[in-house]
Amino acid sequence: MTNQVTVTDGFFSNYMELVRREVIPYQWKALNDEIPGAEKSGCIHNFKVTAGEETGEFYGMVFQDSDLAKWLEAAAYSLANHPDKELEAQVDSVIDLMGRAQREDGYLDTYFILKEPQNRWRCIRDCHELYCAGHFIEAAVAYYRATGKDKLLNILRKYVDLIASVFGKGEGQLPAYPGHEEIELALCKLYDVIGDEKYLNLAKYFIDERGQEPKYFIKELDTRGDTFHWDGNDHYGLPYFQSHAPVREQQDATGHAVRDMYLCTGMADVATRTNDKTLKEACWRLAKSVYDKQMYVTGAIGSTHHGEAFTFDYDLPNDTVYGETCASIGLIFFMKRMLEMEHNALYADVMERALYNTVLAGMALDGKSFFYVNPLEVFPEADKKDPLKAHVKTVRQKWFACACCPPNVARLLSDIGEYIYQAEGDTVTVNLFIGSKLSGKDFTLLQESGVPYDGKASFTVNCESEKKLTLRIRKPFWASEVQCDTDYAEDKGYLVIEKTFRDGECVSFDFAMPVRRVYANPAVREDVDKVAVMRGPLVYCLEEKDNGKNLHLVHLPEDATFTERCGNGILFGIKTLQTTGYIKENRQCSLYSFEKKTEMTPCTLHFIPYFAWANRGENEMTVWVRE
Amino acid sequence: MTNQVTVTDGFFSNYMELVRREVIPYQWKALNDEIPGAEKSGCIHNFKVTAGEETGEFYGMVFQDSDLAKWLEAAAYSLANHPDKELEAQVDSVIDLMGRAQREDGYLDTYFILKEPQNRWRCIRDCHELYCAGHFIEAAVAYYRATGKDKLLNILRKYVDLIASVFGKGEGQLPAYPGHEEIELALCKLYDVIGDEKYLNLAKYFIDERGQEPKYFIKELDTRGDTFHWDGNDHYGLPYFQSHAPVREQQDATGHAVRDMYLCTGMADVATRTNDKTLKEACWRLAKSVYDKQMYVTGAIGSTHHGEAFTFDYDLPNDTVYGETCASIGLIFFMKRMLEMEHNALYADVMERALYNTVLAGMALDGKSFFYVNPLEVFPEADKKDPLKAHVKTVRQKWFACACCPPNVARLLSDIGEYIYQAEGDTVTVNLFIGSKLSGKDFTLLQESGVPYDGKASFTVNCESEKKLTLRIRKPFWASEVQCDTDYAEDKGYLVIEKTFRDGECVSFDFAMPVRRVYANPAVREDVDKVAVMRGPLVYCLEEKDNGKNLHLVHLPEDATFTERCGNGILFGIKTLQTTGYIKENRQCSLYSFEKKTEMTPCTLHFIPYFAWANRGENEMTVWVRE
Repeated sequence: MTNQVTVTDGFFSNYMELVRREVIPYQWKALNDEIPGAEKSGCIHNFKVTAGEETGEFYGMVFQDSDLAKWLEAAAYSLANHPDKELEAQVDSVIDLMGRAQREDGYLDTYFILKEPQNRWRCIRDCHELYCAGHFIEAAVAYYRATGKDKLLNILRKYVDLIASVFGKGEGQLPAYPGHEEIELALCKLYDVIGDEKYLNLAKYFIDERGQEPKYFIKELDTRGDTFHWDGNDHYGLPYFQSHAPVREQQDATGHAVRDMYLCTGMADVATRTNDKTLKEACWRLAKSVYDKQMYVTGAIGSTHHGEAFTFDYDLPNDTVYGETCASIGLIFFMKRMLEMEHNALYADVMERALYNTVLAGMALDGKSFFYVNPLEVFPEADKKDPLKAHVKTVRQKWFACACCPPNVARLLSDIGEYIYQAEGDTVTVNLFIGSKLSGKDFTLLQESGVPYDGKASFTVNCESEKKLTLRIRKPFWASEVQCDTDYAEDKGYLVIEKTFRDGECVSFDFAMPVRRVYANPAVREDVDKVAVMRGPLVYCLEEKDNGKNLHLVHLPEDATFTERCGNGILFGIKTLQTTGYIKENRQCSLYSFEKKTEMTPCTLHFIPYFAWANRGENEMTVWVRE
Repeated sequence: MTNQVTVTDGFFSNYMELVRREVIPYQWKALNDEIPGAEKSGCIHNFKVTAGEETGEFYGMVFQDSDLAKWLEAAAYSLANHPDKELEAQVDSVIDLMGRAQREDGYLDTYFILKEPQNRWRCIRDCHELYCAGHFIEAAVAYYRATGKDKLLNILRKYVDLIASVFGKGEGQLPAYPGHEEIELALCKLYDVIGDEKYLNLAKYFIDERGQEPKYFIKELDTRGDTFHWDGNDHYGLPYFQSHAPVREQQDATGHAVRDMYLCTGMADVATRTNDKTLKEACWRLAKSVYDKQMYVTGAIGSTHHGEAFTFDYDLPNDTVYGETCASIGLIFFMKRMLEMEHNALYADVMERALYNTVLAGMALDGKSFFYVNPLEVFPEADKKDPLKAHVKTVRQKWFACACCPPNVARLLSDIGEYIYQAEGDTVTVNLFIGSKLSGKDFTLLQESGVPYDGKASFTVNCESEKKLTLRIRKPFWASEVQCDTDYAEDKGYLVIEKTFRDGECVSFDFAMPVRRVYANPAVREDVDKVAVMRGPLVYCLEEKDNGKNLHLVHLPEDATFTERCGNGILFGIKTLQTTGYIKENRQCSLYSFEKKTEMTPCTLHFIPYFAWANRGENEMTVWVRE
């Protein structure tokens, strides 16, 4: 590894510490069923039973193993940043357990070993064997990179050899592909670390075969006599699985949002590594379909609970939204790959939007509870009494029966350093403004940044002698003005500085970060005549706690000016915004009236960053405000 | 029968003729499976098989019999207005068939006879034996009243005797009540026509027992080993069935809207006939819960598809609404009973609102297709692609697999004369402005009315000698001013004229009928900053056909004035409204923008009556418009 990133950011280091100190230990306990009152996980138990070291039955979802995988990956990133003997010992012990649980032929999925041994690979559409394998591969690569230890890597290589023998177009092989994508991107990581083309080829096979005729999932269902693993999964057609068409022919982000983003990530990985033109074109098209037509202002994606899915262009309801935390994490993965495919800052803009808003909102400020669904508008009575909003929780939950989001947040935040830079030779691209140190071959680059609350950012180069570098600094979309102490050119949204640096030399930027109003495209029916408030990368929102009830009656005048405040209590350290608005006072008793019986009354409005909402108990919240 | 009403209305006679000429014959064919391409009914077939006159299996829903019952009732009303030998012969022949299908002990439900003979009365929660019985009782009473023929009445009396022996609190009886209410109100009709208290007592028993502890439906499910007749019915709890609490303790309109309205109708029937104070109070409370908190401006009720149900106060989404046609018909039934309990014009206001808007919208102008769901906002792409709106159809359907609405519309419109007046001795209350003749003991009252397009109404009394009458003419809520050629007092929303009429003497009213803007209570989140347009009892709407796409971007200025137009084509005879508004033109390409890139452009707006929407193909529609 030539390029190492150490995060030293005032804002994100807190989150990484939270993950290290709170989330990873908490989740370890959860995996071990040691949290009183929390939903049982059964994850470690399942491995122990599989290894013959405990008695009992399989517990949990068909993809329960993946919780361990994501925890392992998060732990690996944390160890890379912050060595910790105790944690490393925990990881090693669970890897040993996995080794003992692995079958002779390499197979390793506790659900099928314990519960349906006769059905291995027979329920690829609904079950998650390949998905779990993918997550373990990611964990194995992460742990190998963090510690150099290859035991988990070898367990997974053995498993992948089995998978490669089972799937494919050859005689006796299954011409199948995963119901839940994930292994494609994981195989590319394995390829990157091992260098063996067979991993890339298997990833490419899964990508290429997806959606081809005859449709494997229909054939499989047929073979299974139309039985479904999941109640209700029969309502989902091929688009849910992105298998309605070959991936190169897909026009819009479609179906289950997490699956689609994992697929797109894998597609971009394969396209970049094989320089596949049509696959790249599909990636560009699908990326644009997301950020230009189907993404919330918070970077949330997935407009409906039904299938946790994309719906159609400009359909972005704020209250019935799904906006799964994992989907925005998947979007960040995809955008990172798009940046690798093409240095265009707009992918980083999207990444930053999803990261600072939806992903951070997915976790409580104390790291102890999580959102699965991230609404932009909450009216607690509706979320309790309207069945269409039953999926929207008004307070974060401790641990979910389907616990995908918490460990996903943990692994992303632990690994956030990997999203800041792209360093290739003497060119360093800066995509995120997160204080950090990039250690290159013969230089280090020290970034200091006030983002998200302040637009100042400086980059100091340390080198033994002089060092000629090209710095490509992303010009953030939220900056109304850029000041820089050095000359720069502009290219695809980046400020490009070519310069020979002396040791300790610095370039500084001041990105003006005024409060900005955001207007949605009028095709977004739910946001007409409304405005959202942003400052820097942060989307702001109104909470009942600060603004009283009936946030749907709040109006923000076109000329309102904002003053910055410091949050207190749990919001300490967070910058809030204050302005004067109006609330439509209700003087109407009857349900309908021929006279307008409302009155606009001035009121003080307090906006807080969206990521900080729902940290002070259940209450109304809205991102979009009437203008 | 002392009071007979003959409808001679320019507006409604058309509808009644449509029902007589189109709907009743069409539905007869549908019941007999004689409509090519339409969903099979199987209804008559089931009776023939039950009577041993045809072979085959039961076809259709568990409540398939009720389609015949509602058709019979509609046919009976039609025969009362318009004798028709052929139709009467059809009715008589099917009554004969029913007689042959009836079991020795009086039982008569083709589903259970043919399909689950062992499960009679064992699935009261989910199945519809008592509901079907109720509809047949209504039909029998209607046919007896129309023709004096009592064969059907006797079939039903025999069936009711069996029901009365099965249900009750006595030894060996089932302490049960219907899963779908209907028989309660029907038994009161039977009581009115036969005079035997046992019918009223059985109705009262069903009302009183409902929701008592121990909860019968829970016990029944237990006995059945938690099996459900309907897939998914396990998602519905006791409130869906209005069985969460004794009816006298219920605070809000709750659960399945049609069931609730049928229950409330039966409650009011029993309360009036037994002068039951606490039951009356419950009726007042539940009526107010509907019209003051849970009713759309069109008189639609039922805010959610999930359980076809009420949700909570002021929750009135325009696009995901259920608003079943049958629910508004049930609301009209309930309001009629409330008027019988208390002469308060506001109940008639509600009745009129539901009738002229939702009920009429339920049927196409040609009487050939029907809406089940009556949305207030339609955006066809969303209704096709958003699973939350999949229940909203953008064009009326020929016949539904669950064909409850078409025959319900038919029976209400055929019987509309019964909703116009309440005549008690020498007092005549006029609730609806529908041209008609009321024949009393020693007078006739001739109403002429221009409603819904014109506010003039006159009442001419014909009598042999002088006749002292008290006329209580409803002062319609939509009249901005009242002119009358006679002195009147006011009482509970009625204009009261006590007067000795000479033969041919007339009183005339001119109710000013300007175009009026309607404002929803600001607690209705979906209608904030929006306005609806009414003229007289008619709610108006915008359709894409007249106004182009993107109706969500249309704005109606506060000072807009309207001119009246005559519709043409299929809208011939319908008054439309024209004004000048603005449309927010979209100049924004990106999904989000820091600049407002819209522009208000003047445009002509054409409003049509809501009842006439969706008669010119699929298109966008909205009732509420931004102001």
